[in-house]
Amino acid sequence: MTKPIAVIGAGNGGTAIAAFLASKGASVNLCDLFPQYVEGIQKDGGITLTIEGKTTRETLTYVGTDVAKTIKDVKLIMVVTPSFTHKMIAEACSSLLEDGQIVVLNPGRTGGAVEFLATIRKLGCKKDIIVAEAQTLIYSCRKTGPSSVEVYGVKKEVDLGAFPASKTGEVLAEINPYYPQFKPAANCLQTSLSNIGALFHPSPVLLNIGRIETDRNGFKYYIEGISPSVAKLVKSIDKERMAVAAAYGVRVLSAEEWLKTSYDTHGEDLYELLQNNQAYADIKAPGTIQARYVTEDVPMSLVPISELGRIAGIATPAIDAVITLTSTIYERDFRKEGRSLANMGLEGMTKEQVARYFETGTK
Amino acid sequence: MTKPIAVIGAGNGGTAIAAFLASKGASVNLCDLFPQYVEGIQKDGGITLTIEGKTTRETLTYVGTDVAKTIKDVKLIMVVTPSFTHKMIAEACSSLLEDGQIVVLNPGRTGGAVEFLATIRKLGCKKDIIVAEAQTLIYSCRKTGPSSVEVYGVKKEVDLGAFPASKTGEVLAEINPYYPQFKPAANCLQTSLSNIGALFHPSPVLLNIGRIETDRNGFKYYIEGISPSVAKLVKSIDKERMAVAAAYGVRVLSAEEWLKTSYDTHGEDLYELLQNNQAYADIKAPGTIQARYVTEDVPMSLVPISELGRIAGIATPAIDAVITLTSTIYERDFRKEGRSLANMGLEGMTKEQVARYFETGTK
Repeated sequence: MTKPIAVIGAGNGGTAIAAFLASKGASVNLCDLFPQYVEGIQKDGGITLTIEGKTTRETLTYVGTDVAKTIKDVKLIMVVTPSFTHKMIAEACSSLLEDGQIVVLNPGRTGGAVEFLATIRKLGCKKDIIVAEAQTLIYSCRKTGPSSVEVYGVKKEVDLGAFPASKTGEVLAEINPYYPQFKPAANCLQTSLSNIGALFHPSPVLLNIGRIETDRNGFKYYIEGISPSVAKLVKSIDKERMAVAAAYGVRVLSAEEWLKTSYDTHGEDLYELLQNNQAYADIKAPGTIQARYVTEDVPMSLVPISELGRIAGIATPAIDAVITLTSTIYERDFRKEGRSLANMGLEGMTKEQVARYFETGTK
Repeated sequence: MTKPIAVIGAGNGGTAIAAFLASKGASVNLCDLFPQYVEGIQKDGGITLTIEGKTTRETLTYVGTDVAKTIKDVKLIMVVTPSFTHKMIAEACSSLLEDGQIVVLNPGRTGGAVEFLATIRKLGCKKDIIVAEAQTLIYSCRKTGPSSVEVYGVKKEVDLGAFPASKTGEVLAEINPYYPQFKPAANCLQTSLSNIGALFHPSPVLLNIGRIETDRNGFKYYIEGISPSVAKLVKSIDKERMAVAAAYGVRVLSAEEWLKTSYDTHGEDLYELLQNNQAYADIKAPGTIQARYVTEDVPMSLVPISELGRIAGIATPAIDAVITLTSTIYERDFRKEGRSLANMGLEGMTKEQVARYFETGTK
C-alpha cells in the first residue's frame, strides 16, 4: 500500500488536487492553516469534484487544521497556497517533518523551494527533506461551494524542479503516477525564473493604479490595462528576468515565446500578442489595489529576481523601480518581507556558489 | 531712455509678457527659435493684449527668429519657454551675450539658472552675466489667435532668485518697475526646490498611463488621476524634495502648505486638499503620454532634485524610481538629457561647495 499524501491549502487549487488524488485511489490528508477553508469540507464529509465533464464525490482520510496529523507518515506533501504563505507553512512544518519526505510547492513562484528549506533549517530541522517547486498550478479551477470544486482546464505540461536538482527524478517518481504532466526542469532556478506572473501582474497594476481606485466601471486588465506603454515596461522587465536567467546558465522562454506556446495568439510584439490572446480578452482588472498581483508577485517574484540579479551582477533597474514604488504606495517593505537573499538562504554567496547550491544542495 | 527689453519665446507666456512690457512703454524685441510662433505677430504688425478686462494693441520694436537682433543692446532678457529649451537658448545666446546683461527664466523649473550659465561657460562665453529664475510663470494666459493673447490671472507674488544670490537685488531693480510682483528668493536653490510641478505632474501620469492610452472618455487629472494611492506617491516625492531642500538649508513649502497658500481649499492631508481644490476640479488629464507633465518635468524637475540629493547624501528612491520607469517607457535617457550635475556645472562639488556656489557664484 502506498503512503497517504498530504495536501496543505484548501483553496481552489488545493481542494481540486486533494479530490483528484483521492479519485485516483490515494489516501489524502487535507489541511489549511485557516479553518474557514476546511469547515465546509469537514461538515460535508467529502468534496464534490467536477473535472473533464464528470462529477464525482471524493472522501479524504483527514480534513482539518492540524498540520501534524496531515503530514505524519506521508511521503509526498503538496503545498497549494499563495506563495506568501510558504514561509508560514515551513515554520508550521519544521518540527514535524520526517526523513525522506518530499514537499512540492504548487507553484513556487520565484525562490519558493530555497526559501522553504532555508526556513526549516533556520528553525533547526535537520531532517533529510526534498523541496520541489512546480512552475505553475496544474489546474485552472474554482471552488463552486464550500465543499465542491470545478476544474476548467488541466495544463498539458508543468515543469517541476527539485532542490537540489539531482533529486528531481525522485520527486517525479512519486508524483507522476497521479500527474504524468509534471516534467523535469533543469533545476529550481529554471522554474523560479520562468515566473510569468512577475511580468504580467505587478507593473500593469502599478501603471493603472489611479484607474483601479477611481474608475467605477472597471476595465479589462489585459486589453485596456496593458496599453502600449505598459507593454513596454513589461517587456523591459522580461529582458531583465531573462538576463538574470542567462547569467545562471538557465534557459527560460521570453514572454512572447511563452504566449505563443501557451495560447493560440499572434502578433509582432508583446503588446500585439497580449491584445490578440482570446483567453485574456475578458479578464477584468482587480477592483482593489489589495490584489495578489502586487501583494504576492512583488515580494515573491520581483524581489527574488532582483536579488538573484544582484548576486550575478545583472542590473534590474525596472524591476527595482517597481518594487520601490509599490513598497512606497502600499506602505510595506516588500524587499524585507519578500524573498530576500537572507530569506532564501543565499546571503554571501557568489553566482557560482548559487548555481552549484541549486544543483547539489551544498553551499 | 531705458534700454529695450528682449523676450525669447512667443508662446502663451512670452507673447503676454512682450505685449505687457510694450504696454508699459518699453521697447520690446521678441523672438522665437521656431518661426511658426512669431509669423502671426509679424504679419499683424503687433499683439492684441487682453488683461484685467482691457484690450489694447501693442507694437514691438523687433519680432522674428534672430536671437542676435533680439538681445543686442538690451539689459534684460526674459526667457519664456518650456524649460527643456533653456539649454538650446543658452547655446543660441552664448556668443552674443554682452557684459552686464540679465537673463530671467520664466520659470526656471529646477536648476534652470545654473544650467543656462554652465552652458554658456562651456561654449566659451566669459561675459559678466546674471542669470535669474522665476519660481513660476507670472501669468495664467492663452494665445487666442496668431497675434492675440488673453491673460486670465496675474500671480500676486512670484519668487525670483538670481545666480549668484548676491545679485538678486540688481535683477529686481531692473524688473520691478514693470512687475512689482517679483520678490527676492533666498537663492536659486530655493526657487528650484519649490518646484511643485515636480510633484503633481510626472508620477500621476505614470500611475495612470494605461488609462491615458486606452480610456477614450478621458478623465479628470486631479480628481480621478490623483487617487489615494497616487497621492501617497506624490507625498513621498514631496518629502524627498523637502529633505533635499533642508540639506541645503533652504526653506520650501510642503505641497500641503503650498496648496493652502495658493488656493481656497481644505482637507486633512494632501489627497483631500487636492480633491477639495475647486481650481483643479475640471482639469482634464493629457490625452497623450507625450505631455510636458513628463517630457519636461522628469528631466528638468525630478532629475535635478535627485542630482542635488545625491550630492547632499539625501536618498530619493521614489523620485529615482519615477525617473527610471518613465525613461524606460518613453525610451529616453531623461537623466542624461536632463539637468544632470554635468549639465548644471555642479559635477565633483560637495554640498557645501554647491551652497556657496549658489550664493557667490564662485566654485
